Amino acid sequence: MSSRQWIYKTGGIPDEMFVRGQVPMTKAEIRTVTLSKARLLDSHVVWDIGAGTGSVSVEAALAASKGEIYAVEKDDEALELIKKNVELFGAANVRLCPGTAPEALAGLPAPDRVFIGGSGGQFKEILEYACAKLPRGGRVVINAVVLETLTAAVEMLRLFHFSDLDITQVSVTKAVDLGRMHMFRSHNPVYIISGEKQ
Amino acid sequence: MSSRQWIYKTGGIPDEMFVRGQVPMTKAEIRTVTLSKARLLDSHVVWDIGAGTGSVSVEAALAASKGEIYAVEKDDEALELIKKNVELFGAANVRLCPGTAPEALAGLPAPDRVFIGGSGGQFKEILEYACAKLPRGGRVVINAVVLETLTAAVEMLRLFHFSDLDITQVSVTKAVDLGRMHMFRSHNPVYIISGEKQ
Amino acid sequence: MSSRQWIYKTGGIPDEMFVRGQVPMTKAEIRTVTLSKARLLDSHVVWDIGAGTGSVSVEAALAASKGEIYAVEKDDEALELIKKNVELFGAANVRLCPGTAPEALAGLPAPDRVFIGGSGGQFKEILEYACAKLPRGGRVVINAVVLETLTAAVEMLRLFHFSDLDITQVSVTKAVDLGRMHMFRSHNPVYIISGEKQ
Amino acid sequence: MSSRQWIYKTGGIPDEMFVRGQVPMTKAEIRTVTLSKARLLDSHVVWDIGAGTGSVSVEAALAASKGEIYAVEKDDEALELIKKNVELFGAANVRLCPGTAPEALAGLPAPDRVFIGGSGGQFKEILEYACAKLPRGGRVVINAVVLETLTAAVEMLRLFHFSDLDITQVSVTKAVDLGRMHMFRSHNPVYIISGEKQ
Repeated sequence: MSSRQWIYKTGGIPDEMFVRGQVPMTKAEIRTVTLSKARLLDSHVVWDIGAGTGSVSVEAALAASKGEIYAVEKDDEALELIKKNVELFGAANVRLCPGTAPEALAGLPAPDRVFIGGSGGQFKEILEYACAKLPRGGRVVINAVVLETLTAAVEMLRLFHFSDLDITQVSVTKAVDLGRMHMFRSHNPVYIISGEKQ
Repeated sequence: MSSRQWIYKTGGIPDEMFVRGQVPMTKAEIRTVTLSKARLLDSHVVWDIGAGTGSVSVEAALAASKGEIYAVEKDDEALELIKKNVELFGAANVRLCPGTAPEALAGLPAPDRVFIGGSGGQFKEILEYACAKLPRGGRVVINAVVLETLTAAVEMLRLFHFSDLDITQVSVTKAVDLGRMHMFRSHNPVYIISGEKQ
Repeated sequence: MSSRQWIYKTGGIPDEMFVRGQVPMTKAEIRTVTLSKARLLDSHVVWDIGAGTGSVSVEAALAASKGEIYAVEKDDEALELIKKNVELFGAANVRLCPGTAPEALAGLPAPDRVFIGGSGGQFKEILEYACAKLPRGGRVVINAVVLETLTAAVEMLRLFHFSDLDITQVSVTKAVDLGRMHMFRSHNPVYIISGEKQ
Repeated sequence: MSSRQWIYKTGGIPDEMFVRGQVPMTKAEIRTVTLSKARLLDSHVVWDIGAGTGSVSVEAALAASKGEIYAVEKDDEALELIKKNVELFGAANVRLCPGTAPEALAGLPAPDRVFIGGSGGQFKEILEYACAKLPRGGRVVINAVVLETLTAAVEMLRLFHFSDLDITQVSVTKAVDLGRMHMFRSHNPVYIISGEKQ
């Protein structure tokens, strides 16, 4: 597969431009809202925990083009996909971090922004670790697809006195072209929880 | 009110940063998905038809920073808001175009991208005019909040043989902080219809 | 499979109590709202056009227990399922009508209520035929899962001067038990359009 | 206002048929799904805790026509509305229970079904009390409009080993007739949590 570039100033790269496997992928609309909640600067250091296919890492890398994106992922198939997608989009500032969070986070440069897209059941430990490493003014953005993550995220960000707490459920339905007609098809909803460290 | 800058590389400026009146506003999450569907380059000429509060124009101006954004709006209160928001965010490349589309579109430079956020009942005429002025590869993005606009948009983009037709309903629910608890509150859903001229 | 009874006065029989195949099924929550829009009396004659698995017919039969339900369906696999589900729930007042609507509707007793759940591309002809046969005060309820049916339903019910026109999109998301956690999973949304003949 | 009867075998009485004040009301579609999750028999004793306008009590009374519905409500304006709606629909088997739950529940006959629509911040105490009074096979149905109720409901029903646990978010959007066009307007989503006591 030849390399491709995303030349646009706006994000939301179409899903089908990424190499995908069986690994769950953050869909374009969710990804673009997720990135908007992060408020990225050019120079930001970003942790993308549970990076999956790497689609969030790639888009973060394009926005924070002088920064560094640490894509933390424990699954081997997913790591292969991240590698391919990073190459495909020339996102040279993405660093692959194989391993299980929070252990795999030790030794990484302190982040300006933290995404949590997957947690492998260690959500609280990961969020706690990440919050401890975030500087004041740093932001965390969590994509929750299970109720327990939603609940824990809201509780912990309140407990840690995060400000600007935002809890947004985004539900996307597509009217998919079937030739003669357009069928309504829902994606699963995602809760996007974000806040700023005080 | 002092000027403020949006320093981030990602969009989705929080709603409360804009000056707002009684004019309906494209909310941050819808705005950021809408802009992503437009795929803006630095240099793009953008028509923002039914610009409302100007929030889409402002964000388009930040992305297409060497381009020009034409904010077309017929309502006087809305025009005042656009002016204020453009000043507030220093979006010097937004041009105010008072008047009713499609008439008000005559004489504008040909667009690379066309947003239609409001149509005052002239939706078909506006879309037809805009499509005629778009070059091949140009993109149109429509925000439909009424059924008739959704229907007409899909019909016309098919009729005009637009490719990459995408019909996405985005429903946003916030869990709003009421002190002791977070109440689920829905925004009205928006259909975002986009396509590329062949 | 032994027969089972739904002994409750309220509807919304759980999906898993029906025999199901590859045939799309109206899910319990959509079914119960659909039936509520029909406003059934004991004695009603109901046409269920595009009856699918027969779940709507069965529930209509329980509500209109002294009436008659005509389950119109062209697909052989679906007809088998309807038959099984009718037996299973002892819905003796459901009559199977194999064939393609609107042709298959000829000769049926005039309806008090008409459901349209599927149309095989003949939606307008079916709705037109059904509307002609409905008495004043009769009600039609349409489940639209494609945009074109939604559009056509609204246009035609207005054209035929139906009163009490109601257009309701119902989106159902389940938090599904995965053992340690509950994952949010969306059903595709359904537009339920209903009205009363003047 | 003259009395009116709901003569139909199906529920989902239109909202506008009820007397309403400033008290939040369970909308027709949510109400009909809520009742379906309760699975009412003719003879059931039902507690409707936080009865609001009484719309759920009224519909429960029509379904459990030989049973008794206890409408528990602490707000005086709401109690007046319940009284009016009960009269309006001739729901003679609804008993008004002024007071704050769980205290106000003491002395009521043991329930077969418990609805919790509002809790005034005492949700856990109410649910605990209700669960203790429910017999095996009894069902509880909770309408959660805040995140904390959703979380607590799921946790407690698991803790109390309820079976058949169902967590359903229902989002209703209406296409409202504005004359020339139909505008999409969302109701706030409601989580309907239900289960059966083991």
